[in-house]
Order: sequence, then structure tokens, then C-alpha cells
Amino acid sequence: MKIAIAQLNYHIGNFESNQNKMISAISKAKNQGADLIVFAELAISGYPPRDFLEFDDFIDRCWKATEEVAKSCKDIAAIVGLPTKNPASTGKRLYNSAAFLNAGKIQDVLHKSLLPTYDIFDEYRYFEPNTDFHCVDYKGKRLAISVCEDIWNLGVEDLYRIKPMDKLIKENPDVMINIAASPFHYEQAERRKTIMKANVDKYHLPLFYANHVGAQTELLFDGGSLAFNAQSEMVGELNYFDEDLQVFDLENLPKEVKSETKPKKMALIHDALVMGIKNYFQKLGFKKAVLGLSGGIDSALTMVLASEALGAENVHAFLLPSQYSSDHSIKDAEDLAKNLGSPFETISIKSIYESIAKELKPHFKDLPFNIAEENIQARARGVLLMALSNKFGYILLNTSNKSESAVGYGTLYGDMNGGLSVLGDVYKVDVFELARYINRNEEIIPWNTINKPPSAELRPDQKDSDSLPDYDILDTILFQYIENRKGPREIISMGYEENLVNRVLKLVNINEYKRYQTPPILRVSTKAFGMGRRMPIVAKYLS
Amino acid sequence: MKIAIAQLNYHIGNFESNQNKMISAISKAKNQGADLIVFAELAISGYPPRDFLEFDDFIDRCWKATEEVAKSCKDIAAIVGLPTKNPASTGKRLYNSAAFLNAGKIQDVLHKSLLPTYDIFDEYRYFEPNTDFHCVDYKGKRLAISVCEDIWNLGVEDLYRIKPMDKLIKENPDVMINIAASPFHYEQAERRKTIMKANVDKYHLPLFYANHVGAQTELLFDGGSLAFNAQSEMVGELNYFDEDLQVFDLENLPKEVKSETKPKKMALIHDALVMGIKNYFQKLGFKKAVLGLSGGIDSALTMVLASEALGAENVHAFLLPSQYSSDHSIKDAEDLAKNLGSPFETISIKSIYESIAKELKPHFKDLPFNIAEENIQARARGVLLMALSNKFGYILLNTSNKSESAVGYGTLYGDMNGGLSVLGDVYKVDVFELARYINRNEEIIPWNTINKPPSAELRPDQKDSDSLPDYDILDTILFQYIENRKGPREIISMGYEENLVNRVLKLVNINEYKRYQTPPILRVSTKAFGMGRRMPIVAKYLS
Repeated sequence: MKIAIAQLNYHIGNFESNQNKMISAISKAKNQGADLIVFAELAISGYPPRDFLEFDDFIDRCWKATEEVAKSCKDIAAIVGLPTKNPASTGKRLYNSAAFLNAGKIQDVLHKSLLPTYDIFDEYRYFEPNTDFHCVDYKGKRLAISVCEDIWNLGVEDLYRIKPMDKLIKENPDVMINIAASPFHYEQAERRKTIMKANVDKYHLPLFYANHVGAQTELLFDGGSLAFNAQSEMVGELNYFDEDLQVFDLENLPKEVKSETKPKKMALIHDALVMGIKNYFQKLGFKKAVLGLSGGIDSALTMVLASEALGAENVHAFLLPSQYSSDHSIKDAEDLAKNLGSPFETISIKSIYESIAKELKPHFKDLPFNIAEENIQARARGVLLMALSNKFGYILLNTSNKSESAVGYGTLYGDMNGGLSVLGDVYKVDVFELARYINRNEEIIPWNTINKPPSAELRPDQKDSDSLPDYDILDTILFQYIENRKGPREIISMGYEENLVNRVLKLVNINEYKRYQTPPILRVSTKAFGMGRRMPIVAKYLS
Repeated sequence: MKIAIAQLNYHIGNFESNQNKMISAISKAKNQGADLIVFAELAISGYPPRDFLEFDDFIDRCWKATEEVAKSCKDIAAIVGLPTKNPASTGKRLYNSAAFLNAGKIQDVLHKSLLPTYDIFDEYRYFEPNTDFHCVDYKGKRLAISVCEDIWNLGVEDLYRIKPMDKLIKENPDVMINIAASPFHYEQAERRKTIMKANVDKYHLPLFYANHVGAQTELLFDGGSLAFNAQSEMVGELNYFDEDLQVFDLENLPKEVKSETKPKKMALIHDALVMGIKNYFQKLGFKKAVLGLSGGIDSALTMVLASEALGAENVHAFLLPSQYSSDHSIKDAEDLAKNLGSPFETISIKSIYESIAKELKPHFKDLPFNIAEENIQARARGVLLMALSNKFGYILLNTSNKSESAVGYGTLYGDMNGGLSVLGDVYKVDVFELARYINRNEEIIPWNTINKPPSAELRPDQKDSDSLPDYDILDTILFQYIENRKGPREIISMGYEENLVNRVLKLVNINEYKRYQTPPILRVSTKAFGMGRRMPIVAKYLS
């Protein structure tokens, strides 16, 4: 039996596009002699469909689109992920299902048992866990079909009470097939291989694993679908960050493929962010981006990534200097735009700032210059960039990094604006590393931008280090608090100064109100701000 | 046995305050002869603690604070809600528990079985469902203690496979005690009484029900804790929107209390919003608000509610007229501020707008006036209000209503700014009704504000009705789509025009990106924008 893994980039709720992509993949697989083609979890709807799942109309359209795909299944079968209605009067209204399509029809429907409900996952919000297990017989083979998390429950700290494959294995299947929606973070591809291998080690069956690829707003799917033989050798690895279709002969699986050298963290983050920008624009139907280019490293890096995603000619940079902008900043910004070949223009915010300050003077009385005036500058820039975005139909890219977002070192409705945050899940130390990665062959980002001390340039001679600890220390504390969820005592016991730890954790917590209003952030780590990290705004813990 | 219900306003993560509140309630209950005092679900942490639950440090502090409360439990027992660690190596790390405190110690811990994971609830994100049921014996009585949702599973469409009270009833308890965190919406108090009565009807036991009161950012807890005798008569009903403590003699329960006339929807929404504003400021440690007063009904109503919550002297209104502002708008705004006795000042945005337009002219070329210029005005106001907020430590109140938020009729980083959205869950038709409710005894909001046609005044003679359908039609379509989750075909079949329905639903969906960046919204309906409604930004369903 020949099995095709189809790794496609779906569009949430775009049934026509998703269905047509599948139909053409079926035809391609058939031409390559495949007997069965495997699509991803919830492929028909795109993942994650979120609360669209609460609409009967949406669920009905999923079913109808799957029926359309089934019509193409002649002389080939397909496995397609879709939400289906739970016919029982008890339990959640839906199942997260895998449909087995054959002979032009939906022949069987199997359901997911283990429903990830942590981090960015909300599956128990919608789905009833399956408790009825069976394999599917097809062309003399018995298929153990499971959905994503159902084969992940092999670790030491098990989140669930059952292991679905333990049930299916009792029916003596010939092969394991898992349809998945496993989003990227920079360690996920390795984890995925480890868990797949652990399943083959345990059940001694070949395994075919079909993942999504492409970005769904903040969630990035890196693909990397896999095939294993029964001897726990990886015999197939589909593209990363790109669509792919590969056909495997179950009776004659290829030799073990040696993964290329494990990709480095920066290469992975780079590829993920470029895909994230590209798909965000494509799927929303936009072509052009605008951003404010300060001469600093965050906006420089954002611009390079956007240029790779959209084409340099589609990224419009605006230099928005104030009286506090240094000459080198303006030059660094111009050099970058020239290196890339992107259009750039300059608008001084000086007179706008002055006109705002003048109107506020009678109300501010003689109170001294402080954060209010600093923020006016950032917000004047925000107004200009949004005006350009509105006038020309550009999407504004946000350039904040994870470190400043964590401690609230940014102006709400100012530099925190944007349709998409490109670097909001990248700590400042990694911003530097990623910039060096960009320059690995030639100077694209001016080295001066990378090497000078970071500054917001909102008052004379300001430096980030005036108000923040060094980024290498700050970022380690943040990583322990955010990614590893360590409390103050645990972090202090790692050797960090007590006052500093308390100050940093307090900054993170009291700035929850700002992060509540930030753009969606492309997720590259195990714990990004946004849908995967849900914190109260009004609270008194560590603050 | 005398049982006290303590209905308190907790502060998330403020263990010292929560613990002290409980200790003083214990002392008060003891003085009134109580043998047992019942606090709410997750009372020790405040509800909802959200991802703070993922921190061991947080969980440890919950336990320690509960131990502190237990020390006060001498000659009186207490039931306190807290998260506890799941000692098993399988399943989620925590339980949502009820601790039974007696003789200075935590004597028993019981866990919640049914974990609401829908709308604003995320409990299965954190908690393992309980499967071990037992009652607690105390002073010759057997107590059936349950946590919130555990007694809600009585409806026709059951979300869960078990009914915990069916397990507990087998041990022949004498009384049911339920600790809850049941947030307000304008129909919830009635639902709560119905479900409590249904439990007593079924199990023929007295029931004591302890709820939270107070606001936790967007979630409003209205209190309304209840006591029933075994004959299904409601014999106690604690305060709404206020703390309360009442003691009941189990052997000698009072007569049925007749609920006062069922409060009207507008009175409920009014009280909820005032509490929401008040607690948001109190718990964040702020006293003063700022808002832009346009002369329109949304900002007028917001200002009245804020004045009730914070005192009129603490609400600073700014009139921010442009060349498009009508004279009557300015007068209406001034009249309102004078009626309330609030401070108000005026800043024209004309020269700021002109300085922005002047700088943009070379870049805009000769493109015609459009939405870009309209938004500049809204954003100029946003910059001024945030500058005042920053300079004086005021929280900016957002004045957008649910109808405009739904269809994207508002400017991101302009009038959509604010620390808290007061009316974001109130449709425009209800904004009018609420304004009339405010004026029920005297003219507080100028009648002219209520009676004139709504306008954003961002271009000459603009009216909302130029680009939107009449609000009574718009709001009904929105209600069917948002609260009732009806799809296009279902709404059209109710008699609405097909093009209009499609247009409105599309507007809702394509404006998800704007709502992603709006302030937290005080929730008063069954489906508010925010944590209870989770939609993809990049999607193609109905758009």
C-alpha cells in the first residue's frame, strides 16, 4: 500500500480554498500511485478555527466541504481532519475528528480522545473526548488512525488518564497514522521526532504523521511531517516552512533518512518569522507593509524580515526623527533601506510634537518634562504611521521585542501599534543574534545599528540601560519567569539579586494592561505573550 | 447548626487582603453564633487567577494563606475555595478545591468535578476533574460540599457525563453547600435561582450557596448568594453588588423570602457597570479618571457611570472639538459636566490636526480626504487624552459601545483607547435605554444628547446612519450573531434582508483585528467581546 502525506497551508474558514487544495493533492497523489492520502487535523476548517466552532453553520460547511473532497476519492482513500457533531445529548457538542473517505463517500469517522487545553490550545472548550476506539480496514491493511495529542501522552508527567494507542493496538493494526496540528516553536521539531520515535519504539508499527504548514495569525506551523518504519527509523521528513507531498510504499519503505544538521535556533526563528509575515499578508489580502525605521536594531531587523517575506519594494520605511534623534540613527536607518532597496521617506515629528505640547501647556501648567512628553513623541509617530497605513492600505508592522514588551518599555498607542508584531516573542539578546545571522554573509543591517547601545531616543542621551538592567541578565530572569514559570524564590536561588528579581517580576505583572492591547505576536517560543499566556490585569501577585 | 454565608470582594493574588477579610468574617460569624462559615470558590486566590495557577509559588501561597485562615477556625469551621496540587503523576497538576477548616487546621480537601471550559471559563486548562466523592461530617451533620459547576449539570443539554450530587446523595447528607464563582450577566441572577431550586427539588435538602461579589477586570460578580430550605423555598438572598454576611439556623430556617420585584435589565447593568469601574480603580490603586466628552451619548453615559463610581470630582472631562464639531455638541458636553459638577476643560484639536496634515501632505500628494483624515482627528484626541492620563495619573476611560465595536466603527489608537471599556458590552439601543434610566428622576444627561441622531463628527454633517443601518435593526442582527451564534441563513430566515445580514456579519468578522487591541470590556451580557469570545483574526468565514 502506498501512503501519501499531504502537508498543506490551509486558510481558516476558507472552505473553497482548503477543499480545492485537497482535491488537487489527491489527484497528484493518485498520479504517483498512492492508495491513501493523509491530510492534517482540522484541515478542512484550518487550525485553530476557535469560536467559529460554536456556529452550526460553520460545522455544516465543514461537513459539506469534506463531502466534496470525498467525491474525489475514487481508487484512492483519504484521511481528513474536521469537526463533527456529537450526536449524544450529553457532553460537548462536537468531536475533533478524522474522516476516512473512500469510494466517493465519508465512510468512517474517528474522534480525538486527548484534548490539549493549555498554552495556546483550547480544545476542551469545544470538543468531547472520544471513548470509543476502533481501527479502519482498507485494502487488506488495518489502520490505527489517531489525532495529534492522542499519541503524545508518553511522557513522565502524563496529562491524561488514558493512552489511545494502547486501545487501538489491541486490534492488531498494521500501521499508525496520526493527523496533527502541531505549531512551531524553536524546539518543537526535535520534540516531535522524539515523541514519534517513542511511539514506534513502543508499538513496533510504521508511523505516518501529517502536520499543517503555514501561519494562522500568531500560530506558525512549520510542517516537518514524518514517516517511520517499524524499526524506529525515520524514513521520511517533509519540508519545513513549505507545502509538500510525499508518497511512501508501506511494503518497501526507504532507508533511514539522516536529518540534515539540526537547524540552529536563529535559522529556525528566521524562517518562521518570514513565513509568519508572508502568510499574514497573503491570507488577509494585503501586499504592502509600512514601518517606522528608527536606526535601532528592532525596526531594522523587522524591516529585513518583512523584505524577505513581501519583497523589499513592498516595505515602506518612514524615518520619523525628533529633536532627540541622533545623526547616526538617521544615517543607520537610511543605510539599511538603501541596502535593501526599499522605498523610504522622512517626516520630522518636531512641529507636530510642538503643536501638541503647545495645546497641552495651559493644562500641564509648569509640571516638568516626564514620561508624558516622551510618550507624546512615540504617539505622534504612531499617528503618522497609521495615517499612511490608512491612506495607502499598508499594514503597519510592530517592531517591539519580547524584553520590552515584558517590562512595559514601550508606549501604548505609540510604538506598540501595528497589525502584527514580528519580534514580540524574541528577547532582545536574540534580536541581536538574529541580526548577526542576517549579516552572516554580508552587511545588510548596518553593523553600527547592531553594535551601538540601545536607546529609545525620547530624551537627550537616553539609553535603555538607564532604566533597565543589562539585557543578558534581564532576559534570563524573564525567561525563567515567562517560559519556565519560576517564582521569585526559585529565580533568586539561581543566583540573581533579590531586589532585581522582584523589580523585574513586578514590571512584568503591572504591565499586563499594556500587553492586553498589543497586536498579535508571531509565536516562536514555548511561551509567547498572547493567546498562550493568560494573566489577570487587576491583581496583586508579585506587584 | 448555624451556617454563615460570607460573600466577599476578593483581590486576585492579594493573599494578605483576602486572608484578612476571611479572618474578620470568621470573627463576625462567631459573634453571631455560627458553627460554620462558607466562603466562595477559589476565594483565597481571587477568581479567576488565570495563568498564575501555573506557578508553584502561587499555589504554595494559596495553601499557606488557607492555613492562616484555618488558625482562626476555633469553635467554628470554615469552607474555603483554593487550588491544590494533584499528587498523582497523571492528569493536570491541580484541583479546584474546597478546604474544610476546623480546630485550627485544614481537616479535609474536596475537589471540583465539572470544570467549565467555555465562554470566559478556562478551568480545564488548569484543573484535573475530581472522581472521588465524599461528604464531611461535622457536629452531627453530614455536609455535601460541592464547587460551583458541580451542581449546574441539571439542564436538558448536559455538558458533562456525571452529576456529582448524585454521588454525594448516596451518603445521605443533611445539607448541600456550594461554593461558587458565578459572574454576572443581566440574566444570571434568575438562572442561578432556578438552578438552585432545581437542585433542592431533586435532592430534598437545604442548600447554602456562597458566591463572589466585586469586579475582577472585565468579570463582574454580583453576589446574590442564596439559602434554600428542603422544601425548595428560598429563605435567604444576600446583597447584590455588595459584600454581605448572613447566618442561618439549619434547624430553624426563616420563612420564604420573597425576592423584591425582579430588577430590570437597565438597573442591573447600571449597578454592574458602576461596580466594575469602582473596583477596577480601587484594586489598581487609582482614584481619578479622564475621558473625552464629545457631546454624544456614549461619552455622556460613561461619564455619569464613572461619576457614580469614583465621585464626580474625580472624573476629568476634556472637550476636544475639531472644525467639524457642532455647537450643540460642545454645549451638550458642557451641560453634562455642569450637571454632574465634574471638572472639565477644552482643547481644540484643530491646530494639531493641521500640523499633522501639513507634514503628511508631501507624502499623501493630492489624494482626497478619506478615512485616513477622519482617523487623524480621532488619534489626535487619543494622544491628548493619553498625555493627560500620563501626566496626572488618571486612567483613560474608553467610551465605545458594543455595536460600533462589533462593526469596527471606531478608530484604533484613537477613540478605541482606554484602560477600561465601560460600554463595550452594551449595544447602542441599550445605551439609549440606559441613558433614559439615568434621567429617570431628573435631567442629568442633556435630553438633547439622547434625542439627537448619533454622529462621529469627523466630517461635515456626518451621521452614523450614513454608513450603518438603523441601530434597532443592526443590534438585533448583531445579537443573533454574537450572543446566539446564529449563522447567516438562520438570521436571514428570521426576516432580515440577505445583503444586509451578509454585510453586517462580514463587518463583524473583518474587524476582529481591531477588537484584538481594545481595552478590557466590563461584561454584562452572555457573550461579551474579550476573553469569552475567541475568534481568529486571519480567516475567511463570512468575510
